[in-house]
Amino acid sequence: MKVAQVLHMNGGVGHASYANNSLVQQKVICLTKPIREEAITSLYCNTVPRSLAVADLGCSSGPNTLLVVSEFIKIVEKLCRELNHKSPEYKVFLNDLPGNDFNNIFKSLDSFKEKLCDEMESRIGPCYFYGVPGSFYGRVFPNQSLHFVHSSYSLHWLSKVPEGVDNNRGNVYIGSTSPTNVARAYYEQFQRDFSLFLKFRAEELVKGGRMVLTFLGRRSDDPSSKDGGYIWELMATALNDMVLQGIIKEEKLDTFNIPLYTPSPSEVKLEVLKEGSFAINRLEVSEVNWNAFDDRNALEFESERSDTLSDGGYNVAQCMRAVAEPMLVSHFGEAIIEEVF
Amino acid sequence: MKVAQVLHMNGGVGHASYANNSLVQQKVICLTKPIREEAITSLYCNTVPRSLAVADLGCSSGPNTLLVVSEFIKIVEKLCRELNHKSPEYKVFLNDLPGNDFNNIFKSLDSFKEKLCDEMESRIGPCYFYGVPGSFYGRVFPNQSLHFVHSSYSLHWLSKVPEGVDNNRGNVYIGSTSPTNVARAYYEQFQRDFSLFLKFRAEELVKGGRMVLTFLGRRSDDPSSKDGGYIWELMATALNDMVLQGIIKEEKLDTFNIPLYTPSPSEVKLEVLKEGSFAINRLEVSEVNWNAFDDRNALEFESERSDTLSDGGYNVAQCMRAVAEPMLVSHFGEAIIEEVF
Repeated sequence: MKVAQVLHMNGGVGHASYANNSLVQQKVICLTKPIREEAITSLYCNTVPRSLAVADLGCSSGPNTLLVVSEFIKIVEKLCRELNHKSPEYKVFLNDLPGNDFNNIFKSLDSFKEKLCDEMESRIGPCYFYGVPGSFYGRVFPNQSLHFVHSSYSLHWLSKVPEGVDNNRGNVYIGSTSPTNVARAYYEQFQRDFSLFLKFRAEELVKGGRMVLTFLGRRSDDPSSKDGGYIWELMATALNDMVLQGIIKEEKLDTFNIPLYTPSPSEVKLEVLKEGSFAINRLEVSEVNWNAFDDRNALEFESERSDTLSDGGYNVAQCMRAVAEPMLVSHFGEAIIEEVF
Repeated sequence: MKVAQVLHMNGGVGHASYANNSLVQQKVICLTKPIREEAITSLYCNTVPRSLAVADLGCSSGPNTLLVVSEFIKIVEKLCRELNHKSPEYKVFLNDLPGNDFNNIFKSLDSFKEKLCDEMESRIGPCYFYGVPGSFYGRVFPNQSLHFVHSSYSLHWLSKVPEGVDNNRGNVYIGSTSPTNVARAYYEQFQRDFSLFLKFRAEELVKGGRMVLTFLGRRSDDPSSKDGGYIWELMATALNDMVLQGIIKEEKLDTFNIPLYTPSPSEVKLEVLKEGSFAINRLEVSEVNWNAFDDRNALEFESERSDTLSDGGYNVAQCMRAVAEPMLVSHFGEAIIEEVF
């Protein structure tokens, strides 16, 4: 076993768990903080590196992009104070697909660093930030160059729509009426993608490096169970209605499938064991509430949005839209969007 | 002497030498190729690194951004073939201010890598690309993490307009009518900025690392000589005319100065000697033609522009505009731009 590892899976029950809406993401980041804390503490204490390289894969570009980075640095700085160590140097690698808005992240870095320094009681180690474009289903970093890999709310996206799902009529993901080959094709694509992800990350991590992954999943081993793809069944219903109304063509809907897979804990475990580079320290399923605004006090949501949105149904539609809109626009065109949501 | 070094200065005589217009830049990159070739060959043969880290400081975002990177990789790969070495791994760090359009560079990387592989006879070593936002007048990279530093057409920009040039009435740079303190203030700002640049780069380069810098300069030691700031005198004349016509206010013009310095060879040499980290291997002054399109055949200019532009006066104005427009807009507002050029 080359690298000791922490794996965490966030299986969503209910609708908005599927959204990459920033408030839901923030909730997930808060929920998974203790797991990262444990992993980072163990990493630091076992290796005591003078230079710490951390990568966020699928970093996106929004209010949450640098949240985990700031948390990481604070945890290490606290450990350094407790152990009377000199602060290490930090190398922070922010990765996403080349189409991500890296400009936006880069413009916010100066104020992020200022805020971080203000929040710390003492001087922190030097921080170097890098934007790294590329798919995490390929090699992104040099051999053994990372200490800690983090990915939140990205790994449920497949590298592509699986081949051989042309007969998935009236559905956009694995639905209750999907032919059996559809679930198999999705699962096999997940297996290929996830094992490649594990192989490449094992090459990029140093010995003793850690990884914390959070992604959408399901509790059930049945891929067409409600907690796996219910929200996409709702979307398929809306799109089917629009076919009946003549707003979109049936062939267009029949050729639309979402490149996503929400694995069960045993599917994740099996792939990690088969690939063989990593040991699982933790594999957990958590639930995130379908209405992102229910427990805003507990999670310190952004003030500018928590006052204006409070209707549950509206929130679900907004969260879905944040995830699905680019895919829908590229397949069906701009005109149908308002109607779908 | 910590690091052996190549330094090259491109002193422009004539107008368009001041422009960061992509064709002029391309000309400069071609002109300075032998110097980089020599530096890279010496670097590779003296260190034979398995992993080569190269940084382009002030990389900008346009057709020339990856030109030097591609040239660098080709030179090293050729050496590897000749010496029967295995190709090294390449780490390419693209640096510019946070406002640079890194998104545009990142989107072009896939096709750049494809083209590079097509052009090479054999398989090249793995290439990793990083965007690194930040001013090169501060620390940008970790200690001893770079083998080769390159900067073209950026280092003539100062970190800010020097203090104490409030009395530079009717001028926008060191002009023939500028009070003597203005030239002194500009020179002192250059000294502070350039020595900081040298200090930080010396910390970031590995032992035996190399640096090739190309920037605007002048042959003469007189800072108000025509080859130093003539183009800005032309602009000052245009702006003064607009004051007379009441298009811009006199106070506005009096508080506008360009944050740029075009040093002489001896000023550069003195600063390098004083700072003490680097040895100069070469210090050269080259001239670039004021009309970027004069020798287009020799330099393989971009096909989409070489056919449409051929008027010298027009070219000069366009080149000036490419450099000065953002500064003019932020100081005087959008409305005056067409009139100035």
